[in-house]
Amino acid sequence: MGHALAAALAAEHHVTVWNRTPGKENDLAATTAGTAAEAVAASPLVIACVRDYAAVRSVLDAEALKGRTLVNFSGGTPQEARAMAAWAADRGIDYVDGVIVATPDAIGSAGATFFYSGPRDAYEAHRPALAALGGNAHHVGEDPGRAAGFDASLQDLLWTAMSGVVHAFALATAENIGAADLVGHMKALLAFFPDMIDHIAEQVAADSFPGDLLTIDAAAATMDHVLRTIRSNDLDNGVLSAARAEARRAIDAGHGGAGYARLAAL
Amino acid sequence: MGHALAAALAAEHHVTVWNRTPGKENDLAATTAGTAAEAVAASPLVIACVRDYAAVRSVLDAEALKGRTLVNFSGGTPQEARAMAAWAADRGIDYVDGVIVATPDAIGSAGATFFYSGPRDAYEAHRPALAALGGNAHHVGEDPGRAAGFDASLQDLLWTAMSGVVHAFALATAENIGAADLVGHMKALLAFFPDMIDHIAEQVAADSFPGDLLTIDAAAATMDHVLRTIRSNDLDNGVLSAARAEARRAIDAGHGGAGYARLAAL
Repeated sequence: MGHALAAALAAEHHVTVWNRTPGKENDLAATTAGTAAEAVAASPLVIACVRDYAAVRSVLDAEALKGRTLVNFSGGTPQEARAMAAWAADRGIDYVDGVIVATPDAIGSAGATFFYSGPRDAYEAHRPALAALGGNAHHVGEDPGRAAGFDASLQDLLWTAMSGVVHAFALATAENIGAADLVGHMKALLAFFPDMIDHIAEQVAADSFPGDLLTIDAAAATMDHVLRTIRSNDLDNGVLSAARAEARRAIDAGHGGAGYARLAAL
Repeated sequence: MGHALAAALAAEHHVTVWNRTPGKENDLAATTAGTAAEAVAASPLVIACVRDYAAVRSVLDAEALKGRTLVNFSGGTPQEARAMAAWAADRGIDYVDGVIVATPDAIGSAGATFFYSGPRDAYEAHRPALAALGGNAHHVGEDPGRAAGFDASLQDLLWTAMSGVVHAFALATAENIGAADLVGHMKALLAFFPDMIDHIAEQVAADSFPGDLLTIDAAAATMDHVLRTIRSNDLDNGVLSAARAEARRAIDAGHGGAGYARLAAL
């Protein structure tokens, strides 16, 4: 990912790169620094993309960063982003937390999405340079943890839904239904999601969950029926069983007649 | 649901209805039968929609059904559908298993999807009448359990993904991100799913799972990072933890470098 970011930036700007494993940057139209401190000293904007926040602090020299802007794309939680921002503030470093929702091959193209949070003026000052990374960039707030909050929420949806996709193929395979026979119906089903998401978002925003479209009771009954089919095929049922357990807790708390979106407010 | 089916049929055909709770059919342009056997005797096509397969057998008279076609929309597993078909065959009844993927208000409209399985000739003979139910109708095979297999696979995806949607809103709320701020990004994320589903379906069909797009290792690392954020907010983490556990089993079995779709073949 770091290589993809550097390549996109170097296409439009003068870039100085440093990598823990020397040589990976040889194909870039960029200046190579011998140390991280040298790379930091070369530019007013410093972009970090390493394993996690602890790695950022161990790699970068706070003294060299003083008076510069650090945009950190290393992954972490909102709490870690806030702690990093506090660490930077104590050292006179302008800090912007960044999140990339894209695979490395999408960097520089329209398919990438970036979330930024932290001081708006620091972000705006470097927005023209960051635009070289391509895609859709969103400054989502001054709270430095906010970009990571968006990321966690979207990745939560992504990986839960992805587990549903692969499990549906596993169940279909067990029932002798070919993947190619199912794929069109899966897409047709997912085509209902934008409207459902609007409906759920409205109920969450209003904190009111009428069961007019679909109740938790009805969802639970359908899940039971699917779980029986999963178990009859001796497949792992952990994910849907956990979703069913969430519905059970809502029903036990008296919300069985509420809309399924009520689960977002338990 | 039974009422919605009868209303759609009655708009185009002569229909005789029976319901366990008398009076619910009063607004229909249909003949009301005093008993289920009377309703069965009135038509060559008998449509059942009750709680489950056991309820169908307890309500309908096998003698009255002999020589007629029974289309059963009651919910169950593929195994139950096959057992029902065997029961019907023993009694000289043509049996077609049906599945409705729609809410009652969509019956009669283009938004409804129907799956049918069982003898194709019995289905074709009554296809013109069933067309009055609207939507997209698919005869998916002669195996009577096949419609229920499609249904279970699609409902598996639907309810897993729905649990992801509501959990993402719960996590966003905990991070002080408003539902209205997240909804556009959720839709943008789901817009990648049709291509991802094609990619996964191709790997499943070929039983070959190169990790070119996304490995199980990378997915697991992202899930860990989301799970830390979920736990830091004291939210239920059952669903994503179960998805993470499936990834762990694949990694333990040596498939960490394989594509995420490999989970469909464990």
